[in-house]
Amino acid sequence: MRPVSWPPVAFDFLQRLRRASECTAEASLDGLLVATGPDLLYLTGYDPPPLERLTALVIRPGRDPLLLVPELERQRAEASPVGRAVDIECWSDGDDPYQLVGALLPAEGTFAVSDRMWASHLIGLQANRPDGTFGTASGVLTPLRARKDHGEIQLLRRAARGADHAFNRIAREALQGRTELDVARSLATYLEEEGHESVAFTIVAAGPNGASPHHEPGDRGIRDGDSVVMDFGGRVHRYCSDITRTIVVGPPSEELEEVHEIVRRAQDAALRAVAPGVPAEEVDRAARAVIEEAGYGDAFVHRTGHGIGLEEHEAPFIVRGNAEPLQEGMCFSVEPGIYLEGRFGVRIEDIVAVTADGAVRLNHATRDLLAVG
Amino acid sequence: MRPVSWPPVAFDFLQRLRRASECTAEASLDGLLVATGPDLLYLTGYDPPPLERLTALVIRPGRDPLLLVPELERQRAEASPVGRAVDIECWSDGDDPYQLVGALLPAEGTFAVSDRMWASHLIGLQANRPDGTFGTASGVLTPLRARKDHGEIQLLRRAARGADHAFNRIAREALQGRTELDVARSLATYLEEEGHESVAFTIVAAGPNGASPHHEPGDRGIRDGDSVVMDFGGRVHRYCSDITRTIVVGPPSEELEEVHEIVRRAQDAALRAVAPGVPAEEVDRAARAVIEEAGYGDAFVHRTGHGIGLEEHEAPFIVRGNAEPLQEGMCFSVEPGIYLEGRFGVRIEDIVAVTADGAVRLNHATRDLLAVG
Repeated sequence: MRPVSWPPVAFDFLQRLRRASECTAEASLDGLLVATGPDLLYLTGYDPPPLERLTALVIRPGRDPLLLVPELERQRAEASPVGRAVDIECWSDGDDPYQLVGALLPAEGTFAVSDRMWASHLIGLQANRPDGTFGTASGVLTPLRARKDHGEIQLLRRAARGADHAFNRIAREALQGRTELDVARSLATYLEEEGHESVAFTIVAAGPNGASPHHEPGDRGIRDGDSVVMDFGGRVHRYCSDITRTIVVGPPSEELEEVHEIVRRAQDAALRAVAPGVPAEEVDRAARAVIEEAGYGDAFVHRTGHGIGLEEHEAPFIVRGNAEPLQEGMCFSVEPGIYLEGRFGVRIEDIVAVTADGAVRLNHATRDLLAVG
Repeated sequence: MRPVSWPPVAFDFLQRLRRASECTAEASLDGLLVATGPDLLYLTGYDPPPLERLTALVIRPGRDPLLLVPELERQRAEASPVGRAVDIECWSDGDDPYQLVGALLPAEGTFAVSDRMWASHLIGLQANRPDGTFGTASGVLTPLRARKDHGEIQLLRRAARGADHAFNRIAREALQGRTELDVARSLATYLEEEGHESVAFTIVAAGPNGASPHHEPGDRGIRDGDSVVMDFGGRVHRYCSDITRTIVVGPPSEELEEVHEIVRRAQDAALRAVAPGVPAEEVDRAARAVIEEAGYGDAFVHRTGHGIGLEEHEAPFIVRGNAEPLQEGMCFSVEPGIYLEGRFGVRIEDIVAVTADGAVRLNHATRDLLAVG
């Protein structure tokens, strides 16, 4: 990861902390414990590396939030956006941080921890509060984080634009004879040159490898006639990009054209299904119906999408079983795919924001089946 | 992260899995559950991204290991080093993966989960096995992972060499007038050019910022007379580098020279204390004694070091309270420091391997107090 500073967008972290406190009380929790990671970054702007030393934001109903940090992170915590507004307590190497957190909580009670807290930390806390009941903090924090405000959407838009540009650049190049790994490296470079502070993943899957949705790019040479699935993303001011396009080397086969067209129609159907109040799973169903009708239902092996923001994957998940209604400001991927084992795969993915008028795409790279050299 | 392939070092993953199974039985565990992350990478060579979909290696006494993966990771799991040797089961979006793992375990029993498993996954498993007792897997896996074999030390040595070269390059440049962030970016570039596949962190802390051990590089301009703490690292074939040097712009003050010399003597004392059988905390004590004797005890605010390997920080931790005896093959940092708030800081860090003859440094960049322009 390259160094990155906070964006030229002012987030009201104190307001976010207030909301989190209110929601903690409303959920009848006795404590909400947020370790390093996207929840902490969202609530405080503080983003220390996720290491084995416990950092925990402790939110209790009716009390001011408190941030417990390792001693050697103290100055960094104090310099963070909430450093002057939140009480900071330190623990030193050799202390037991779980005891320190435990002492802030009632012996019995219901506590929630951030989803990405390490299991080792949760087990340490559970050992200190054996009569407590522990659950995930997402019940409280997801409703806050899932609806993006104007500044967040602005950053997601910039990230999407950078990914679009990276795709446009690779799509002007000849791919034949290059390895997947080489193309993946080019994409990483382009993402950085197009304003990304870090690259999270660069899937390049040629020919039969495209049938593996999360294929790891390797030494396979790209040949004439190959379809190539490219799925890549990174971060701009910590907000994620994530785009997928499938292109072809030389003229496409009729079958590839047909499958690509089905996936594109499935994506369009999903995009049209997006509106405030619509259950997330309806968007999945809309995409799936198109693919099933075309006879490829078994080949669409994953959900239609995932929320995106400070995490590559976050709520809302666009998946069967998720009846949560979409709301204005939610941002997520719409990425149907068809995977034909041993042969090829096609996926098309854009990030969208939910508005009163439906889905607005944040990506603008062409979704036509491009043929390259 | 840039794409990376496995190193030209053959690791015997099946042997590692066998040892883990034996140790699981010896520890009287009914199941060891390893999610994505360094434990999984160590045991199987399989390294999918740590996302919200559960991936779990299930190790049970007397049974063959089983790898449960999301359907869309199946082909990648099969292509991994253990893909043909281990049973792979898949779950689809919309299924409950915790129920699938639970069904592989007895209703009551003692289970251990990998330290870095997400809390949300652990809570899902605990809900499915409410009569189970859950602990951390590190009791079983740390003894295996902490002693590095020849191939691992070879990779740590390559990583250390790359970090040395990156330091040597920055130390030939003029720093005056540049920002911390600019120097941090150069270090990131040099790490990559010197063979690192990814950069994990680049701390550059000038003048008073050096008193914050984990300072985030910012826009502060570097001035004549500033000391500059540079602590940076990344990965080479997934094994970590981590080096710290403190340099000075222009001629050093007498006080800086003195403090630097104390830190260096503290490091030397710690290095001399390293030998098989010596409790880890003795190495910490050796460094601390030198700094305390010089009157700076309160200014050495962190432990002396941490193990390193597939994680930046792992066992053994060189900290008071850790009586674990060092063993041949253990690799860790030795990094005493002195931090004078509002003024400056000094830290010197090398990675060492424990041999029958004591510590061998894997870093070779000079530890003299270099003065640059």
